[in-house]
Amino acid sequence: MGVTDLFDPDGIAVVGASKTAGKLGNDAMTNIRSYDGAIYPVNPSSSGSVYGYEFVDSVTETDADLALCCVPSPVVPEVIEECGEAGVGAAVIFAGGFAEVDEAGREREAEIAALGEEYDMTILGPNTAGYCIPHLDLYGSFVPEIRDIETGNVALLAQSGGIGVTGAFQLDREEYGVSSMFGLGNRANVDFAELIPVLDEDPHTEAIAVHIEGTEDIDDAIAAFRECETPIVVLKAGSEEFRDFVGSHTGAPMQDRGAYEDALAGEGVVFVDTVTELIDGARAIASTPTPEGSNVGLVTAQAGPGIIVADSLRERGANFPDLDAETAEQIAEALQGITYTENPVDTGRPLPEFGEVIDAVARDEAVDVVVVYEIYERSLGYPVEELEALAEDLDKPICFIVAGPESFETERLQMEAVGIPTFQAPERGSDAVGALVELADE
Amino acid sequence: MGVTDLFDPDGIAVVGASKTAGKLGNDAMTNIRSYDGAIYPVNPSSSGSVYGYEFVDSVTETDADLALCCVPSPVVPEVIEECGEAGVGAAVIFAGGFAEVDEAGREREAEIAALGEEYDMTILGPNTAGYCIPHLDLYGSFVPEIRDIETGNVALLAQSGGIGVTGAFQLDREEYGVSSMFGLGNRANVDFAELIPVLDEDPHTEAIAVHIEGTEDIDDAIAAFRECETPIVVLKAGSEEFRDFVGSHTGAPMQDRGAYEDALAGEGVVFVDTVTELIDGARAIASTPTPEGSNVGLVTAQAGPGIIVADSLRERGANFPDLDAETAEQIAEALQGITYTENPVDTGRPLPEFGEVIDAVARDEAVDVVVVYEIYERSLGYPVEELEALAEDLDKPICFIVAGPESFETERLQMEAVGIPTFQAPERGSDAVGALVELADE
Repeated sequence: MGVTDLFDPDGIAVVGASKTAGKLGNDAMTNIRSYDGAIYPVNPSSSGSVYGYEFVDSVTETDADLALCCVPSPVVPEVIEECGEAGVGAAVIFAGGFAEVDEAGREREAEIAALGEEYDMTILGPNTAGYCIPHLDLYGSFVPEIRDIETGNVALLAQSGGIGVTGAFQLDREEYGVSSMFGLGNRANVDFAELIPVLDEDPHTEAIAVHIEGTEDIDDAIAAFRECETPIVVLKAGSEEFRDFVGSHTGAPMQDRGAYEDALAGEGVVFVDTVTELIDGARAIASTPTPEGSNVGLVTAQAGPGIIVADSLRERGANFPDLDAETAEQIAEALQGITYTENPVDTGRPLPEFGEVIDAVARDEAVDVVVVYEIYERSLGYPVEELEALAEDLDKPICFIVAGPESFETERLQMEAVGIPTFQAPERGSDAVGALVELADE
Repeated sequence: MGVTDLFDPDGIAVVGASKTAGKLGNDAMTNIRSYDGAIYPVNPSSSGSVYGYEFVDSVTETDADLALCCVPSPVVPEVIEECGEAGVGAAVIFAGGFAEVDEAGREREAEIAALGEEYDMTILGPNTAGYCIPHLDLYGSFVPEIRDIETGNVALLAQSGGIGVTGAFQLDREEYGVSSMFGLGNRANVDFAELIPVLDEDPHTEAIAVHIEGTEDIDDAIAAFRECETPIVVLKAGSEEFRDFVGSHTGAPMQDRGAYEDALAGEGVVFVDTVTELIDGARAIASTPTPEGSNVGLVTAQAGPGIIVADSLRERGANFPDLDAETAEQIAEALQGITYTENPVDTGRPLPEFGEVIDAVARDEAVDVVVVYEIYERSLGYPVEELEALAEDLDKPICFIVAGPESFETERLQMEAVGIPTFQAPERGSDAVGALVELADE
């Protein structure tokens, strides 16, 4: 079994397709029609067409490689069997009502897993919001407006489709995207171990953000994480206290975060605590070179937020090395000695010389990671030109923590365009840089 | 000494006003001119007018109650003395170069403090970004575009003007505002103890968000926090490790967070860790009734994020009580028993019955705080009507954690308009509700 039919299907069947707005089978049709390939709405109870595609009665009447199954759980085994007979290589099962529910559901899930094996068919789900690969215009999901999600350099691999969707939309709202997003759901036969190697090979993916609740195949998952060369950020969710709730979700067995952390120590995997840290950390790692060490050079235009960022980074293992005498001289000259010119460097206010100060600190050999904080002031703007030159010249991460009125958005995105990831709150910046620093220590 | 001239000045002098864009004295003029009162640009080196206001040579030629001092530190004592002679009741000193710098600065600061006492003048700063009171159109700050900040029900009282400005702009970007924002800076004679009682009396302020680095007058500050009836959320910044950096900022003495926490245990003060938690926590507390206990009823349309929210809330001291038999029956009926109908309640997907389920849980007497999570789907929308009825009928907090494409913004703001605070990431919601729960336990 391979998962390639999820990535480049020649034809796609939407089983249970519908003309009725708001129905799952209509939402899935709405999302999939941007794909450049044959689309087959399958529904024996419907006639005519939907979005210009003629309904057919059965998936066996199609040339589909991929089937999006929009039918309720009792019908799923029958549909999967038909998919197998039709030579479909991959199926996505959205419906819940399987191993997460009861014994009958567990049997039904075992049945579809067996069909997957019999027909050598990849099955994403059941009980998933699906997946998307924006650079292929491939949105295999019922989630409305998921087509808003654009292409980015982070792959989001979530056990919970809800976390995958939440994270992807959070990225979207700040003008980022994903290289792909997968909701694993109950993992009938596609689990972390199956997708990680494919994402590792994906040229669009520079970091993988993973959400884990727990999997029976923990050894295979751990092995896949270990072998993966692309950096991985992990959010492990689901505590013992909500064992029943977690089990009722994707049928996950109870597993401690510690079990994963211990097995993955020193393997290029960073663990985080929140969804925002997951996507911000992955974004920082995907957008910058891996730092050579944990020595941070911090330049701030306002001391108050700078103190908060410095403290938080120190708690996450960052060092603040003394700057070279030459660097200190350059800074003192630019700042005329009126502020704190050690590391962290505080310029007191954004000044015309702000870019110059960042340049001096960034080029200091003692510094592995550069962090900047600045409240936007229109008359001065952000030092985009200096940052662009630094991003080109240096092989070290530069992260920029922004604050200010909405009007800074254009210049924020200019910084992103030249390879400087931005973060819109002090702790978001320090958490993301913290992930970079942890990766350096691996 | 009172601080009333900061709140309702009849006339305002901008000392060091300038016609030149980008100069501090021009930025301050730009911000203050929205105020409905006499404005006097003061600058003996300038003639003519700025924004239609005639320059005068000295503050003694004005009827100002408030002076915004935009001059460099060496000139400040002279300006403050003139202000005193002119009968100015309050002055804001933006310039740095005082106690945070060196011995000469300390002397200069002592000098202006003595002048403040001699002339019974309130002095905000030095070394501050200033303040704003949006409902009075009063923006006493040099920070460009601070006039974007609109009126809200949270007062932001920050030792660091940079944190005040960062927090206010963060609120602004999500369409919130502040009742007032103050940057204390070096606290020549306006410290926490002076402003807290005034904010406590302010009818526009429902919660006070406080940022502390450290103050010599810690006993007075603690007493003011204790006496304050308005709920307070505190972010204590500045660790021992960056003692010099912190000291160089607002001349703060080194003080542990523990010193504040111990002194304020059981006094209606909640401590948080980040800027976002500070403003989200204050927003939740300001916008909802104080909960009677820590029993949370959680309704989620997606289990994955629900698990994360539930775990995080439990860690912050929330309980998840069993629901009443009648509630469970109502939920099971609405959901046809296909999902997890205990507390947390997981509906599996947003359904037309989602509002009904929230209603049942919210009206359960075992529940003190209602938390909802839902990824937006256009065809279903958010249950605004049901939430409005609940907010009217019940005297308990209801918080809504949102996710989804940008297009949900209208309905998110509709929820805010009916008194339901919204939070745009799972951990932001659980942190804010965590602050509410802590307040209940006080």
